[in-house]
Order: sequence, then C-alpha cells, then structure tokens
Amino acid sequence: MLFMVQMDLDVPYDVDKAAFEDMKAREKARSQELQRAGKWPHIWRVAGRYANVSIFDVEGAGELHEIMMSLPLYPFMTVKVTALCGHPSDINQDD
Amino acid sequence: MLFMVQMDLDVPYDVDKAAFEDMKAREKARSQELQRAGKWPHIWRVAGRYANVSIFDVEGAGELHEIMMSLPLYPFMTVKVTALCGHPSDINQDD
Amino acid sequence: MLFMVQMDLDVPYDVDKAAFEDMKAREKARSQELQRAGKWPHIWRVAGRYANVSIFDVEGAGELHEIMMSLPLYPFMTVKVTALCGHPSDINQDD
Amino acid sequence: MLFMVQMDLDVPYDVDKAAFEDMKAREKARSQELQRAGKWPHIWRVAGRYANVSIFDVEGAGELHEIMMSLPLYPFMTVKVTALCGHPSDINQDD
Amino acid sequence: MLFMVQMDLDVPYDVDKAAFEDMKAREKARSQELQRAGKWPHIWRVAGRYANVSIFDVEGAGELHEIMMSLPLYPFMTVKVTALCGHPSDINQDD
Amino acid sequence: MLFMVQMDLDVPYDVDKAAFEDMKAREKARSQELQRAGKWPHIWRVAGRYANVSIFDVEGAGELHEIMMSLPLYPFMTVKVTALCGHPSDINQDD
Amino acid sequence: MLFMVQMDLDVPYDVDKAAFEDMKAREKARSQELQRAGKWPHIWRVAGRYANVSIFDVEGAGELHEIMMSLPLYPFMTVKVTALCGHPSDINQDD
Amino acid sequence: MLFMVQMDLDVPYDVDKAAFEDMKAREKARSQELQRAGKWPHIWRVAGRYANVSIFDVEGAGELHEIMMSLPLYPFMTVKVTALCGHPSDINQDD
Amino acid sequence: MLFMVQMDLDVPYDVDKAAFEDMKAREKARSQELQRAGKWPHIWRVAGRYANVSIFDVEGAGELHEIMMSLPLYPFMTVKVTALCGHPSDINQDD
Amino acid sequence: MLFMVQMDLDVPYDVDKAAFEDMKAREKARSQELQRAGKWPHIWRVAGRYANVSIFDVEGAGELHEIMMSLPLYPFMTVKVTALCGHPSDINQDD
Repeated sequence: MLFMVQMDLDVPYDVDKAAFEDMKAREKARSQELQRAGKWPHIWRVAGRYANVSIFDVEGAGELHEIMMSLPLYPFMTVKVTALCGHPSDINQDD
Repeated sequence: MLFMVQMDLDVPYDVDKAAFEDMKAREKARSQELQRAGKWPHIWRVAGRYANVSIFDVEGAGELHEIMMSLPLYPFMTVKVTALCGHPSDINQDD
Repeated sequence: MLFMVQMDLDVPYDVDKAAFEDMKAREKARSQELQRAGKWPHIWRVAGRYANVSIFDVEGAGELHEIMMSLPLYPFMTVKVTALCGHPSDINQDD
Repeated sequence: MLFMVQMDLDVPYDVDKAAFEDMKAREKARSQELQRAGKWPHIWRVAGRYANVSIFDVEGAGELHEIMMSLPLYPFMTVKVTALCGHPSDINQDD
Repeated sequence: MLFMVQMDLDVPYDVDKAAFEDMKAREKARSQELQRAGKWPHIWRVAGRYANVSIFDVEGAGELHEIMMSLPLYPFMTVKVTALCGHPSDINQDD
Repeated sequence: MLFMVQMDLDVPYDVDKAAFEDMKAREKARSQELQRAGKWPHIWRVAGRYANVSIFDVEGAGELHEIMMSLPLYPFMTVKVTALCGHPSDINQDD
Repeated sequence: MLFMVQMDLDVPYDVDKAAFEDMKAREKARSQELQRAGKWPHIWRVAGRYANVSIFDVEGAGELHEIMMSLPLYPFMTVKVTALCGHPSDINQDD
Repeated sequence: MLFMVQMDLDVPYDVDKAAFEDMKAREKARSQELQRAGKWPHIWRVAGRYANVSIFDVEGAGELHEIMMSLPLYPFMTVKVTALCGHPSDINQDD
Repeated sequence: MLFMVQMDLDVPYDVDKAAFEDMKAREKARSQELQRAGKWPHIWRVAGRYANVSIFDVEGAGELHEIMMSLPLYPFMTVKVTALCGHPSDINQDD
Repeated sequence: MLFMVQMDLDVPYDVDKAAFEDMKAREKARSQELQRAGKWPHIWRVAGRYANVSIFDVEGAGELHEIMMSLPLYPFMTVKVTALCGHPSDINQDD
C-alpha cells in the first residue's frame, strides 16, 4: 500500500546544536534503514525549503504510523498524509 | 529536473458526456506517450478523489509548462507545482 | 483497512429535480449495498448540512477509489479522505 | 447524542519527558474509562500523525464539554467538534 | 440543546426574480413558524452582508438537521454549525 | 448596538497554575459584572473547546473595545468580532 | 459609528454589457448620494484590482446594512465588514 | 501615495510589563509625530481587538517601509499592506 | 514605483474559442506595448500553470490600476498586488 | 533556471540583539556574493513588511536548495518557492 507523506520541518533557531545534529544523524540512519527495506522507496527534497516529499510502500496504515512515530525529527515536523493507488493511465499498471 | 505536480479535477456535472469521454481518452494517450518518453516517470491516483500526484522529469521549467498546457483535461484542473531535488538521505544519491 | 471519508455536497439550485431525485435514489441503493457488504460500516449525517462522515473498511486504497467513483452523487461532492489505523488506547485493540 | 471530535496534538520538543509520559498514561486511563462507560464508542489513530478521530455518544453538549476538559492532554490539542445525527441511508436507522 | 448556525447566502445575480421573491417569503414564514415554536430563539442579521447568525434550541442534532433542510433558501446557503452549552460564568446558569 | 464576539483561548501548558486560576476568577467576576449591567446578555460555551460565543449589547464600538481590553484573559484569546443588527424575519422586530 | 467595508467584485465575463454599464452608473450615483450625505466619507480603489476600501459613518449597524443592500452591484460583491472606533494615539481624538 | 496598513498585535502574556509600557509610549509618540507630519492621516482601532487600520500618505513604498520599520511595536505585529488609489466614484476626485 | 502582480487565469472550459483567441492576441499586444514603454519590465510564466508573475514600474498606484483594467484577459484573472521597494542588500541600490 | 522565492521573516522580539545583528551582516554579505555571481539577479523589499521577493537564476533545483540553506537568516524565514519560465508575451524571449 502506497502513501505520499509531505514533511515540513520547523526547527527553533535556538535549538541545542549538538543535540540537533545527533537527531539529524539518527533520522538519516533510520530513513536509510527503511529505504533499504523497501518501505520508503522515494524521498525528494523540496527545493529551497527544509521539507521533503516521500513515498512509502507499507503493509497498511498501521505500519505507516509506526514508521512516522519512530522518526527522530518527528517533533519538528508538520505532516500531511495522502493515500495513493494505481492510476488507470499508468503504463506499469496491470489490467 | 524533477517536479511534483498535483492535479485535482473538477468536472461540471452537466458536461457533455461524449465530448468528455473523448477528452479523457486523449488525456490517457498523451500521458502514456509522455511516460514512455521518460518525461512522466510516476503517476498515482489520490485514493477516493478525482486527482493525481505525478512526478515529471524534464529538461527544465519550460518543458514542464509545455507538457501541462498540452493536457486535454487541463481546463478542469487545479494544479500545484513543487520543484524537487535530491535528498541527502536518499540511498540512491551520488555523493 | 479503514478510511474516514468526509463528503460535502453542493447541488446547484437549478438542477433538474427529477434527474436529481433519481440520482439520490441510486446513491442510497449503492450505499446500502456497500453497507450490507461490510464495506461501509458507518455513515453519519453532519447536523444541519448536506454532508456526511463515513467510515469505510476496504481491502486497500484501490477499492476505496472504485467505491467513491461509483457513487452517483460524486459529481456534486467535495471529498476529504483520511487513512485510519488502530489507536493504542482503544479497548478493542488486540495487542 | 453523537459527536465527531478530531484531536491533533502538538507537543513541544523540549517537554519534560517524565511528566509527559505520566500525562499520556493518565490520558489512556481516562479514555478507556470513558470507552467502558459507552461514552467514547470509537477512537481511531490518524495514520502517520499524532492525532485521532473519535466518536462520542453523550447526553448532550454539556457532557461532551466536561469530558474534553477532563482529558490530561487537552492543553496540547487542537480540537474540532462536529455534531452528527442519523443518516437516512444508514441500514441501521429506525424509521 | 443549543446550536449556533451561521448562514451565508450567495444568490446568482441572474436568478429568476419572481421565483426568488417567493422563496424569500416562504423562508420568512418558515422561520417565524419555528421562532413561535421556540425552536429558533434568536436570529440576527450580519451587518452589511446577506448573512445571519442564529441560535436554535432543539431536541437534538436530528431535529436541527430537519429544520435546516426544510429552509427554502438552503440551496443558496453556506452553513456553519457550532454546538453550544451553558457557560460556567453565565449568571443564569443553574449550579 | 449588538456584537457577536467569538473568543478562543490558547493557554500555554506550562502557565503558572496559581496565577492562571487567579486570572480565571477575575475574568468570571468581570463577566458577571457586565452581564448584570446588561452589557453582555449572552455567553455560551463552545462544546468541547476552551472557547465561547458571546453577544454584547453596548453603546457602540468604543464601549465594546473597552470591555474586551478589560478582560483578564484577553492575552490568551483569539477574538473575532461581528457587528449584528435586527433581522427582518425576527418576530420580535418592530416594523 | 464607523465601519470599514472591503468590497471585492467578481463579474462573470459574459455578463450583459449594457445591463452591467447601467448597474455601474446607478452604483456610482448611489455612492455619490451617500458621500454627499456624509454617510460614506472615504472610498479608495484597491490598486490593480476591481475592489475598494470604504469607510462608512452611520447611525449604527442597521443603517450600514440598509446601505449595503441598496447598492446595485451588491450581487457581484464579496463583502468584509470591520467595526472601528477611535484610536488612543489619534491626535484628533477627544480625551 | 496612499496605503492601507492593517496591524494586528500579538503580545506574549509574560512580556516584561515595564518594558512593554515603554514601547507603547514610544509607539504613541512616533505615531503622533507622523500624524502631525501628514504621513499617517488616519488611524482607527479595530473594535474589540488589539489591532488597527491605518492610512498612510507617503512619497512612495520606500518611505512606507522606513516608517513601518521605525515603529517600536513592529516586532509584535502581523502587517498587511494594500496600495490604494483614487476611486472614480469619489466626489473629491479631480477629473 | 515598483509592484509585483501575480495573475492567475481561470478560463471556463466552454468559452467561445474564437473570441478567446482574439482576447489572447489583444492581451499579448497590450502587454508588449507596455513592455516597450518600460512600464512592464518583467513577465515570467509560472511553470505548469496558466499564471504569470510580473513586475510593473509605474508612476504610482493609479497608473498600475489603469493598466490592469486595460488588460483584455482581466475578467478571467485572480490578481494579487504587492508594493515593492529597494532592498538594502541589493548591490544596485544607491546609498 | 529561474525561481521566484518569497521570504518572510519572523524574529522573536527577545532575540539576542548582538547575535542577530551579526546574522544580518552575514546574510547581507552572502546575498551580495550571490548577486555578484549572477545567481540572485533581483531582490526587492516588500513595502512595510520584513519580507522580500527574490529571483534566482541557478543551474537547477539542487543549487537553489544549497543557496537557501546557506542563508544565515533561514531559521527565521517562511519560504515560498515558485518555478518560473519564459513567457510567450515577453519581448525579450527568443522564438
């Protein structure tokens, strides 16, 4: 099952720098772990903004929720979730 | 260059059915022509709504514009464009 | 898989009354068919507005999409879809 | 009388962790107490976000208000309330 | 049970004048019938706009819904419903 | 002259409890003083939210402003003001 | 009593030109009649848009409402009303 | 050149009272200085809210900007600027 | 004096094609006439949407207004105007 | 490739003045370095607000992103990015 998740980050300017760098490193590791497992097939940076557009491929909504709650930077995120499905014009869709 | 384009369609309930079916057929043909050319690598349906999320891979903003204006269903669309770039956490990014 | 779908209807005041009554009758029949099949376990009226809040229990996002597109009154609807999952505080959740 | 209540939580990243865990535990206990009393028949997690969709079945608006004000996590919530009633297409509605 | 209902009217400039005057007359009659029955205790005009703020005192959400659907001008309205209850600072509240 | 004022309160979770209880007590006393003077004829709680809908009956906009600025909880409020007048369908309106 | 009224006009592109010119001429005459009576002391054009910002000086909200409803172009307007009062920093305010 | 500027103030409840009173005094002095110079011909209080509607009459956009940045309370303001021009219906307009 | 004007076009799908092509040709001629006169120094297409971002360099707000009202496609536009001035970091700014 | 970037700054009133002045000086230096390199051909101040409208001319979305992330004041900004392309009515466009 596919979901688009749009994550916008708003980090207070006076956040503790060392703690935040640690959170970013753990976020990257967690993201790459999920990418390698095939759960997070696409991640794009939104040009010019501290934000990303991601596609998740998960068992269901429950797994998506667990993944999102496990992200170290979740407390700084505004998140928008959109459930996706195959498009009838997609040349890779089965009939 | 990558763009996310979100297209929401609002079709008047009293549209001429035959003319609209013809537009939909031409839209699908145009979309698949662009998919085969590698310009429109992803198209997903937004579940439950007459809308899609698409990723375009084009030379630049000018080509994206020509493509969007060539879509037969453009007159019914509300369109949102987001410029994307590679994400530093993407395992497929080159260094 | 569970989805909340909020449907708001906006019907032009000069719609053909007979055609619209026919659409409403077909909508009701379709809704009840889906309720009996267990696909649409809850439907509530939003008090004072021509709108409803519904819960769908479907195989996945694709089935939800087919259902929504099959609704006779879809052309008059503004639709908002929210993917749901079990809540850890729910006394009916399995561990 | 039925209400849909949508609760979105926004917790400051630097909240005291122990105090917050205590609030969450009291929130869960309070929610389950109300579920067992039949006042809170449905609670769903919004997939991917620290938010829920709930249905309350109460005597009236006053009881709903007392319940919401009694929730330990209320200070972190943005709350949207929608009054519901039976839908004429509901197969479980009495005539 | 109390509800605040905010009704904003948007009437197409080319509406049939005679038909619309008839609808307004029936709306006024229906409103005054409900006021006399104690169901619609307050109606105020929003200064400068074709809109009103109303308070309804009804058995429950179902009765509110029936009333709103019975209004001849409903097809021109955008409606916002807010469930109300007694305020602890109200000098007319019972303890 | 009549005004509807909608007050939404947003109180930081870490506000000093004793100071806030004192402000609430002074707010209640001030509100009841104004109610007894006939300046604040209606106050309703918005069900499920720390918010109210109020009707003020004042000499004019200047008096409304002084009242609102005198409220101890004003610093926590988001305020929306709507000027009202008599409605032609109101059965209590003079001709 | 002072009100700011912001009027935005949206005129369908296929409006009958002669009828619309007539409405505009009557709007201008009505506006100037009210300006001369001192009821409409300021009217400014919003630069680049078919819109205006106006200040009305009227007996009360009821008179404002009658004025707005008497404007020939009202059916094309979106209207926002803001009640004003004297500002303590205004050098023309009486103490 | 005329501009309408709408200033909404949001002052944290725990601001230092003495420092804030000093800022308000300096704001009032600066405003009255500009009023006397003919740069700020109108200032109205928005009834019931800590906000104002102002008209500025300046050389151009640059002078407006300098004025706004010189206001002691600017850090607490949300500001909306609208460029104005003469209205063809204004009885004080030259032909 | 500089203004940014954002113009979004919404053209009904059933507009008369010949009349619309004529309007577009007249719009282009008018735009180029103003560009050659130095009044409209920049016009950019918003990629993927029937919209543009323009910079106008005019005597004042009155001239901007006349220009916008003279555009043949104005009836299809939603327009947003922003007054600009020199930026202190601009390397082309005079001191 | 051209982008319009709209930057709105929101600086807490109690920011450390010396640190903020240092950030502003570094922002100005960075902006002018990019202007001289031809990457940031236009920057305008939004009249009356701590905001700017900028045009960037970069290799692609990736370079835009790097530039924005390198701005010392980015933590205080709300940023909106719009991809631009040549307009067919532009007299400086090549055929």
